[in-house]
Amino acid sequence: MVKIAILGFGTVGSGVYEIIKNNAVNISKKAGQEIEIKYILDIRDFSSHPESHLFTNDFTKILKDDEVGVVVETMGGLHPAYEFTKSSLEAGKNAVTSNKELVATYGPELLEIAYDNNVNYLFEASVGGGIPIIRPIHQCLAANNIKRITGILNGTTNYILTQMFREGKSFDDALSDAQEKGYAERNPAADVEGFDACRKIAILSSLASGRQVDYNKIPTEGITKVTLEDVKAAGSMGYSIKLIGYADINENSEVFARVSPMAVPNYHMLASVEDVFNAIMVRGDSVSDVMFYGKGAGKLPTASAVVADVIDSVKHLQKSKRIMWNDTDPDNMISRHCIEGSFIVRTLKDTDTVLSVMPDAVVRTGDNEQNTEETVFITPVGLEDDIEALVNEVGGIISRIRILPE
Amino acid sequence: MVKIAILGFGTVGSGVYEIIKNNAVNISKKAGQEIEIKYILDIRDFSSHPESHLFTNDFTKILKDDEVGVVVETMGGLHPAYEFTKSSLEAGKNAVTSNKELVATYGPELLEIAYDNNVNYLFEASVGGGIPIIRPIHQCLAANNIKRITGILNGTTNYILTQMFREGKSFDDALSDAQEKGYAERNPAADVEGFDACRKIAILSSLASGRQVDYNKIPTEGITKVTLEDVKAAGSMGYSIKLIGYADINENSEVFARVSPMAVPNYHMLASVEDVFNAIMVRGDSVSDVMFYGKGAGKLPTASAVVADVIDSVKHLQKSKRIMWNDTDPDNMISRHCIEGSFIVRTLKDTDTVLSVMPDAVVRTGDNEQNTEETVFITPVGLEDDIEALVNEVGGIISRIRILPE
Repeated sequence: MVKIAILGFGTVGSGVYEIIKNNAVNISKKAGQEIEIKYILDIRDFSSHPESHLFTNDFTKILKDDEVGVVVETMGGLHPAYEFTKSSLEAGKNAVTSNKELVATYGPELLEIAYDNNVNYLFEASVGGGIPIIRPIHQCLAANNIKRITGILNGTTNYILTQMFREGKSFDDALSDAQEKGYAERNPAADVEGFDACRKIAILSSLASGRQVDYNKIPTEGITKVTLEDVKAAGSMGYSIKLIGYADINENSEVFARVSPMAVPNYHMLASVEDVFNAIMVRGDSVSDVMFYGKGAGKLPTASAVVADVIDSVKHLQKSKRIMWNDTDPDNMISRHCIEGSFIVRTLKDTDTVLSVMPDAVVRTGDNEQNTEETVFITPVGLEDDIEALVNEVGGIISRIRILPE
Repeated sequence: MVKIAILGFGTVGSGVYEIIKNNAVNISKKAGQEIEIKYILDIRDFSSHPESHLFTNDFTKILKDDEVGVVVETMGGLHPAYEFTKSSLEAGKNAVTSNKELVATYGPELLEIAYDNNVNYLFEASVGGGIPIIRPIHQCLAANNIKRITGILNGTTNYILTQMFREGKSFDDALSDAQEKGYAERNPAADVEGFDACRKIAILSSLASGRQVDYNKIPTEGITKVTLEDVKAAGSMGYSIKLIGYADINENSEVFARVSPMAVPNYHMLASVEDVFNAIMVRGDSVSDVMFYGKGAGKLPTASAVVADVIDSVKHLQKSKRIMWNDTDPDNMISRHCIEGSFIVRTLKDTDTVLSVMPDAVVRTGDNEQNTEETVFITPVGLEDDIEALVNEVGGIISRIRILPE
């Protein structure tokens, strides 16, 4: 019998409680022993909960209880999640989390403390909700050098972009719709500004490169500037606009990561990922591209990933030998000035002007429902700085959308 | 330092050799110790191979060598792969395989022997080539009761169907094309008759249900009877035809499994899976649908999955506590007579006849490039036996294609 404590009884924490309660027999069978919830830490009042005796607001009680073998941190935020996780690991307790902010910020330190104390720090639920991604990259693709990760990592923004593309809604209308349906927060900045995707691509690229990627160094652009006209222009060229978390990893384990709206060709699997779904494509040197797809958020999907980590911890109590990545010198980031790329551009200038500056540009021709005063074209591929300079030389720019690299 | 032996130096075995040679530093780092190939068993002559000293045709030498900690079985076929694997496990060696035939046939016995001898029997590469699927189902989705598995499990047939759908080729032309490209064997029966997909869905449904699914009991229909006209008729109704390995698992861990061509609605992610790619959709009670996508075959993708299992074995030498499924009473299969379904039907009868028998049928209307003497319709959903009876009552049947259940 292993006893666990759940820290934070919000959406994910209460989902963990439900799954462990409803699925007890199967979970115990898979873990090899019974798993029992001994504490739930939450400062709110749960005195009318059917199992109100489980609730406490005193973390010290949990920390000092040697019966607690696994601490499930589903509080979110950095503090006190960091302090609670650190002291749990130091006390020889395994820790499992869905907290991407904490993993992206303190991952290497907490992983090292876990290693030193022979326990696990597991965070499958921190990226992609219920989609298996952390363990598949770390274990199943272990024989590969990971070269690239390309992900639709945020369901809210993907829902908004799908509404714009499929239903022809404006960004504002699509956002309101997402808020009504509960897919977007009242303050949607973390999603629509790309901050959420940024933390997630930081975690994935740290895992894939073996070195900590500082999310503060990841150029991050959300979808607030994407207009319905941009979506239509991309559509007319055979592309869908998606918010992409992107990372290239070179043979020296250096990383170029970015979060930005990107035009994805419609034949690409990621273009078929609609609504609140997430998908992560991983390119390994042996396996080439593999993709993982599913619901990237939500109570039970996310909680099921947390519980899978709890089961894994219980199977490996006191047998941790996992160090997923290290803190590193700050020079592991490839500069954006070294990156090649291309763009779909909308300009007020005419085709002749475009072609005089960029003879290799592909200009949209034929049937055109849109404003006939604008020209839409695809730039050639080159150093992004060079391409940007040429685009500026064309002038009259309405917008430019980066194209997903091949 | 752990020494390994590779049994069978064919496509996958030589891929394993390559990856371990080319990626030695990284692999050792991930495994926690050095991995060295000590033997390669093959009856053919490799005396001109740069490392000809590794080759042997004497399995006993490998079996008796206590330095060999992991045996990699990439021979294929049942015998002597079964005997070699069994005696390796009994001798306390871990075994890793890409041999779906062996896992589907002797899985429970070999898993039990491995368990009793405190070693691992791992087979990530047996399904989906390089796509992570065995470990994600077993570990990452451990908190879920798996309800359904729907997979495009065979790249050859998916390539052929893609060529028919996209290029308008006949089955025979598409098959010849696949053979020319090396995607299909000279004798393509194992692929086009669905036998390969059948072994794979047997493995996946055994894993998901925890009970051995006998592949001999899985109704299996290949794609040899699918005509270009069927593909076009399905296309005109908004569907793509795919060879699907399908399994439903109920709350008593009973399984209904089937391999057959199915019409997949074009908005479904599986419809976007083209060419030689594979994809497996797994439905869990908490996570809902997650999908795994990638190259399901090929030397390096498959070998990379084998090597990942080698790494995992080395990390868990003498620590196996995995029993993935048990042999079971023969009554774990749900009869096909209890299954609901619907079909796309092509008939020589007219719309009125169809609607007089099946008032709820959806008959294709509008623009129709095809033979105007035929009527194409979608049946309502019902017990398959009942629906089949109604279809037969309509009469004049040219073909019927099962529709993928929702």
